[in-house]
Amino acid sequence: MPNFQTVRGMRDLLAEEAAILNFVVGKARETAQLYGYKEVITPVVEPYELLSAKSGEEIRQRMFIFKDLGDRDVALRPEFTASIARLATTALKTEPKPLRVFSVGSVYRYDEPQRGRYREFWQSNFELMGSSNSEADAEAILLTNSLMKASGLQGYAFKIGNIGVIRGVLTQMNVDDKVQNAVLQRMDKKEYYEAFKLLDNEKCRTVLQGLLELKGGTPFETAEKITEYVAGYAEAEAAADNLLEILQLVTASGCPVRAVEPAFARGLEYYTGMIFEVNVPELDIALGGGGRYDRLIEVFGGEPTPAVGVAHGLDRVALALQTQKTELPAGRRKTAVVIPVKPELKAEALKIAQLLMEAGVSVEFEVMGRKMGKALEDADRRKVDYAVIVGERELKDDAVVVKDLVKREQSTMKIAELPEKIS
Amino acid sequence: MPNFQTVRGMRDLLAEEAAILNFVVGKARETAQLYGYKEVITPVVEPYELLSAKSGEEIRQRMFIFKDLGDRDVALRPEFTASIARLATTALKTEPKPLRVFSVGSVYRYDEPQRGRYREFWQSNFELMGSSNSEADAEAILLTNSLMKASGLQGYAFKIGNIGVIRGVLTQMNVDDKVQNAVLQRMDKKEYYEAFKLLDNEKCRTVLQGLLELKGGTPFETAEKITEYVAGYAEAEAAADNLLEILQLVTASGCPVRAVEPAFARGLEYYTGMIFEVNVPELDIALGGGGRYDRLIEVFGGEPTPAVGVAHGLDRVALALQTQKTELPAGRRKTAVVIPVKPELKAEALKIAQLLMEAGVSVEFEVMGRKMGKALEDADRRKVDYAVIVGERELKDDAVVVKDLVKREQSTMKIAELPEKIS
Repeated sequence: MPNFQTVRGMRDLLAEEAAILNFVVGKARETAQLYGYKEVITPVVEPYELLSAKSGEEIRQRMFIFKDLGDRDVALRPEFTASIARLATTALKTEPKPLRVFSVGSVYRYDEPQRGRYREFWQSNFELMGSSNSEADAEAILLTNSLMKASGLQGYAFKIGNIGVIRGVLTQMNVDDKVQNAVLQRMDKKEYYEAFKLLDNEKCRTVLQGLLELKGGTPFETAEKITEYVAGYAEAEAAADNLLEILQLVTASGCPVRAVEPAFARGLEYYTGMIFEVNVPELDIALGGGGRYDRLIEVFGGEPTPAVGVAHGLDRVALALQTQKTELPAGRRKTAVVIPVKPELKAEALKIAQLLMEAGVSVEFEVMGRKMGKALEDADRRKVDYAVIVGERELKDDAVVVKDLVKREQSTMKIAELPEKIS
Repeated sequence: MPNFQTVRGMRDLLAEEAAILNFVVGKARETAQLYGYKEVITPVVEPYELLSAKSGEEIRQRMFIFKDLGDRDVALRPEFTASIARLATTALKTEPKPLRVFSVGSVYRYDEPQRGRYREFWQSNFELMGSSNSEADAEAILLTNSLMKASGLQGYAFKIGNIGVIRGVLTQMNVDDKVQNAVLQRMDKKEYYEAFKLLDNEKCRTVLQGLLELKGGTPFETAEKITEYVAGYAEAEAAADNLLEILQLVTASGCPVRAVEPAFARGLEYYTGMIFEVNVPELDIALGGGGRYDRLIEVFGGEPTPAVGVAHGLDRVALALQTQKTELPAGRRKTAVVIPVKPELKAEALKIAQLLMEAGVSVEFEVMGRKMGKALEDADRRKVDYAVIVGERELKDDAVVVKDLVKREQSTMKIAELPEKIS
């Protein structure tokens, strides 16, 4: 017998897991509708050139890259942003701003598999293009809050920062962009010692060190400390003010913010302003995150356009819900089996099954040709609500026998009344 | 500016197209629930060994095959069946029969792009395992009928056959399986002359020719003619009886069958019994099709298990709906813009936006900081239902100004009453 495991890092989601993921996908789509984001569907397979234009080196090295049969360099999307940027600079180029775009689906990264991290995973992605205002930043956080809340997640909380604070300080101290990127990448991995080593200016290290030590206290206290600390560094001051304003906006709307962190960096080289993540205590890994990326459209050849985006790890949200033993909302259909007592009645029984399904009942038709007792026993084991038995005698009166398998009652019912009685 | 087109054969689905495809995907999922099929989610990237175990040479040559970074031979799934068979022989091995499994998602084939045929496309896939009875065959057709009907498709019709008729005749005339496969592949391409050339026995050609000429008349007449014609070819007779019985079952339940075709072959080498397709006049290409494949599980190392399956081309169904200018069912949310009259009121305005969204209203928050007139003009152009204007004076009375942009009326409303009034 051949060995047919899934590819390392990929997995099958069976009935219950699939249902939870679908539930979360549905909530993401609902959130998009509520916040006025239009859904687009972009390909899983994209030109390598497109995907590598935006991604940092780190993501590039973890992409599934190959040549198609036409010798084109292609890759599986590691995220949605590049595809959305393509649309924003082509098909959606003339759309008036603000432009709100939503996507959901599977993305692919060659990461070391661990709990909650797979090589195929599901994201919902929201991009808001055209606004540089703090309410746009707030929207990315608020919609994430709405999604987590609507999914029924408990105890999640946000961490917020603004990459412009550190960048503003470093820029004013003449640290060039490349070194800044390297410093931020180290900081994202919490390798602070390595990060500091990259700075050859002693004063610069001291200032940065002081900034990072500001964490602690309530988010508001931290945000205010940051504002005071960077006084005099104009760009950093503006970023700190922006961070404080966003914090005010989202907490006023009931968003649970756990921390404001000056050292928060979120690895990706491309953020230019606010950044955030959402976490639950049960998982080591963020459930979602995003931020402001004002160069997004420019990188893809479009007009400079301010933009905020967020991606949610939907299978991680699903995992968190499972870990929290969240019950999916019921709204479950009634279920029935339909059993013809003899083969000649199959056609009649199938018609009755159709009637029930049209009324919204989930019907398993008896396709095994089993004896009545066996079929009923099976229905019982499967916790089906009703058995509809199609027999010759009752059919003459346009009726069938209905067994209520929950109440363990049996009655004869007119076929015409069946849908209403059972659904 | 870089050239960032989609990869040849792949495409972006923008707002309206995405909405139609999502609508059809939703109907497929609903159909699965109604017929008692459990959804599973399997990876897009599968071991090449798995995907090639079942697919005929023709599909194998059109797969996207590559090596992952761990040097594994992998491919993008060209269909769902192999993945489902894997589950049936592993995780779902001990599940009682019948086993009904549903999947939906994108699949990949390197075909020459044409109208309705892309290299990335969407399928829903239903597999019913464990039953060799005609009601199981009928179920695959009936659920397809339910899906087409629920999608609002007009004028679709089924073509039904049974591959066992031709095979039964050829087997009894000692034509070996390989030649049979080759003959059927030619016939599927309507290359009858080429098909006949593969048979070196004159009598065999004559009998096959006679069988193929039986088409015409009503589906029932054709089915009966076939039954008569193959009298004496035991296997073929059984297949013809089965075909007639399935035809009776599905037409009794209101399925529009256009034709029974003895020459109908459906290319794939693996069908063993009933086969069918569903078409609309507007498209040259089938919207869905399937059949009985009793060796499915065996090929994957499991116990011999009778099985019927069907796959639907959901983006083709969506295209057919667009071609027929089908309106999606309304059920559209009310829409509103929320505009703070000055920046200091952003936080209050965001809270009001949250209230409305919690009541199901789709809200676009004014993130551009535009002047009132400009923002209202934009809302009007976008055909938004309401503008909610958050001003200082009204806020003192816990109220806002609401403009009904459809009726062109304006009123002051208590915030607490807003959700009910607008949703």
